[in-house]
Amino acid sequence: MISGSALLTDLYQLTMLQGYYEQNREAPAVFELFVRKLPKARGYMVAAGLAQALIYLQELQFSSNEIDWLASTGQFKPAVLDRLAAFRFTGDVHAMPEGTVFFPHEPILRITAPLPEAQLVESRLINLLHFQTLIASKAARSVLIAPDKLLVDFGMRRAHGGEAALLAARASYLAGFDGTATVNAGMYFDIPTYGTMAHSFVQTYDSESEAFIDFAKANPDNVVLLIDTYDTEAAAQKVVDLADILRSQGIKIKGVRIDSGDLAEHAKKVRRILDQGGLQQATIFASGSVDEYKLEALTAQQAPIDGFGIGTHLDTSADAPYFDCAYKLQEYAGIARRKRSEGKATWPGRKQVYRNYDDNGFMCGDTVTIENAPCTGEPLLQPVMQAGRIVTPQSSLMESKEYAKRQLSRLPEALRQLSATPEYPVIISAELHALAKSVDEQTLF
Amino acid sequence: MISGSALLTDLYQLTMLQGYYEQNREAPAVFELFVRKLPKARGYMVAAGLAQALIYLQELQFSSNEIDWLASTGQFKPAVLDRLAAFRFTGDVHAMPEGTVFFPHEPILRITAPLPEAQLVESRLINLLHFQTLIASKAARSVLIAPDKLLVDFGMRRAHGGEAALLAARASYLAGFDGTATVNAGMYFDIPTYGTMAHSFVQTYDSESEAFIDFAKANPDNVVLLIDTYDTEAAAQKVVDLADILRSQGIKIKGVRIDSGDLAEHAKKVRRILDQGGLQQATIFASGSVDEYKLEALTAQQAPIDGFGIGTHLDTSADAPYFDCAYKLQEYAGIARRKRSEGKATWPGRKQVYRNYDDNGFMCGDTVTIENAPCTGEPLLQPVMQAGRIVTPQSSLMESKEYAKRQLSRLPEALRQLSATPEYPVIISAELHALAKSVDEQTLF
Repeated sequence: MISGSALLTDLYQLTMLQGYYEQNREAPAVFELFVRKLPKARGYMVAAGLAQALIYLQELQFSSNEIDWLASTGQFKPAVLDRLAAFRFTGDVHAMPEGTVFFPHEPILRITAPLPEAQLVESRLINLLHFQTLIASKAARSVLIAPDKLLVDFGMRRAHGGEAALLAARASYLAGFDGTATVNAGMYFDIPTYGTMAHSFVQTYDSESEAFIDFAKANPDNVVLLIDTYDTEAAAQKVVDLADILRSQGIKIKGVRIDSGDLAEHAKKVRRILDQGGLQQATIFASGSVDEYKLEALTAQQAPIDGFGIGTHLDTSADAPYFDCAYKLQEYAGIARRKRSEGKATWPGRKQVYRNYDDNGFMCGDTVTIENAPCTGEPLLQPVMQAGRIVTPQSSLMESKEYAKRQLSRLPEALRQLSATPEYPVIISAELHALAKSVDEQTLF
Repeated sequence: MISGSALLTDLYQLTMLQGYYEQNREAPAVFELFVRKLPKARGYMVAAGLAQALIYLQELQFSSNEIDWLASTGQFKPAVLDRLAAFRFTGDVHAMPEGTVFFPHEPILRITAPLPEAQLVESRLINLLHFQTLIASKAARSVLIAPDKLLVDFGMRRAHGGEAALLAARASYLAGFDGTATVNAGMYFDIPTYGTMAHSFVQTYDSESEAFIDFAKANPDNVVLLIDTYDTEAAAQKVVDLADILRSQGIKIKGVRIDSGDLAEHAKKVRRILDQGGLQQATIFASGSVDEYKLEALTAQQAPIDGFGIGTHLDTSADAPYFDCAYKLQEYAGIARRKRSEGKATWPGRKQVYRNYDDNGFMCGDTVTIENAPCTGEPLLQPVMQAGRIVTPQSSLMESKEYAKRQLSRLPEALRQLSATPEYPVIISAELHALAKSVDEQTLF
């Protein structure tokens, strides 16, 4: 379900490995993955995807088919193909736990491994960590704006492929969503699944009421009826009219779903119809182009909506479908390194991030410094893999979800807004500045 | 590599199937997939993803593990689980060939199958066709803006998961890109792969020149050197200085790559340095936040760049990371249907799209009408699956690529612009208007 192919990488990783193997450049290398800057609509990020990244590293190997194919390209020497056939990741990994709130310049993952190993894994590590972090960071915004609503991932169809759908369900659940409509995310990650009916179910019937009855009989424990196929308020009245018949058969109407039109307006009218019809317990669930901005507007309008299906905007992180992150060499053979390309310079060396909290327990400032340099605060990077084996125990998804919830509860109030958030203070330590200066002076290029 | 799980669907498909099976609602249903409206930055779309959609339909079945898991949820009755265990897609499919240019309201795929079969496949069909169509439509813009440049997909790391990376490589190649950096797309789809070196390769050396030499010796047939790790022009001069040494060893420098800074400015300086150093044949390849807008600007500046790596913006379709498409019931048991939800009404019945061309061979207008209604023009929907089996022969990826090229060559000049494109004429036929009217009159709801 989640691709583990060693060929899911960029070709240049393999051409570089050819160079590294040939020149015996296999000393320990340190790479760190960090965000260069936040997308303009984000004030913070939520780390996610580590579990999949670690499984990838632990299980990574080339199949004999893949080696044969590489050989067939004529680009790789036999000695290199032999090395690839025997390839295993044997390095160490430090990382922020999934669900950690983080900011630019802060490494969320550090790889320490022989250079070819640390190099090869770059593309897929970024691919896995970027996407889930993207979605967790997007989902957290809805969670903070509508903390008391049921939030369900509805985005599978417009997620970018099957793996994205599965991982978006996981990342949004981690960040505080209540579940997903994507069935295999339920099976794979034990995430609660939600789902009722589509318009097509209603459309195949000549009578909307008949469709409602048949659906209720077939799914007696999960009767949420979609009422906007033709006329929303008329359908709400039909639901009221059917309630007695269904009740006599022991079936309770759990709620209705509205998927189009002015959701606040319809919800208010529908709530009145349901209440007047004795269905005060029936909930109203809404979907259709919902995102955190619409959630905020609906909350401001006091729309009587109990839960939301959030799809396309969540699974594609529509207002910021990527962020600027990098996986960069920080040290090779014991010597700190950095690149200085214009606009892309990095801080060298092995780093740690320390977080401080104010008297009310809110995050008030981070410091990025050299590992083992003296610093106050809570260190955020922890060892998660040693010599190629995942350090146990790792957090379960549910534990990470609880941790993310605590993290978000400690986010400063001003950062919870959807826009115009202030910049969170991230200090680059004097030690790190000094190291960068010394690296620049020593680089002989 | 590409998920075929039957559980990669929305839960409501399964709860609806429970209703359909229980009520024996298994008459033939017709669903069509179409775009409601174009994203604001698009003047046309390019259909892609059909090959994966057809394989999905032909191979679709629930594994015994999946059936066991569904049983464990307690939501499905034993008789329904038995039906799911025996599930196969037995329907017919009509579709526009991959690479077809299309517009809103035009079905690109039509499914005719017993209702439960046509229903279940909705989520994954949209997931597969939406994403590749999204990427092919994005890629075509670069292809039309820079027809003479080498264009390579560099987006794997920021694609939304592994499947997205693989399918983005395919869709962009289909739309006219020359290849991809994603290795497994090479193996899986026989797409040319491109790749050279990253900054980390250079950074591990104390001497940039030494890094260049080692890389060239290891990859003598593919010497493209990345020159912006420290100082772009200084590195270009080093390349010139190395050329003789490498030539004496039988190694030719193919080109250089620039990945940061003002690409036009650097390219002009680097071109001069290379030319003065006798490396007129060495090409300049550029990457770094490139998209079709930047390509247009670089072309306007006459930047001497021969090829581009286009990554994040391509693989996420960053300026339009989704489009508004739907898969809707158009007919059930021989009777045309449509939904009338606000802002989401659809045209009923089985449809065909006819395209007309002007005297110069450019597309000049399409008509959407009822299948078999009289109409002039080239019919765009063709039978591609019958009774659950793919109609053979299907186009190879290379044939589809050629077809896409011909399609794009017939796109009206005004639609080739990156913005402010006029609306292409799509006529809804009188027959279709009449059918919609009669469906509305007959719906008894």
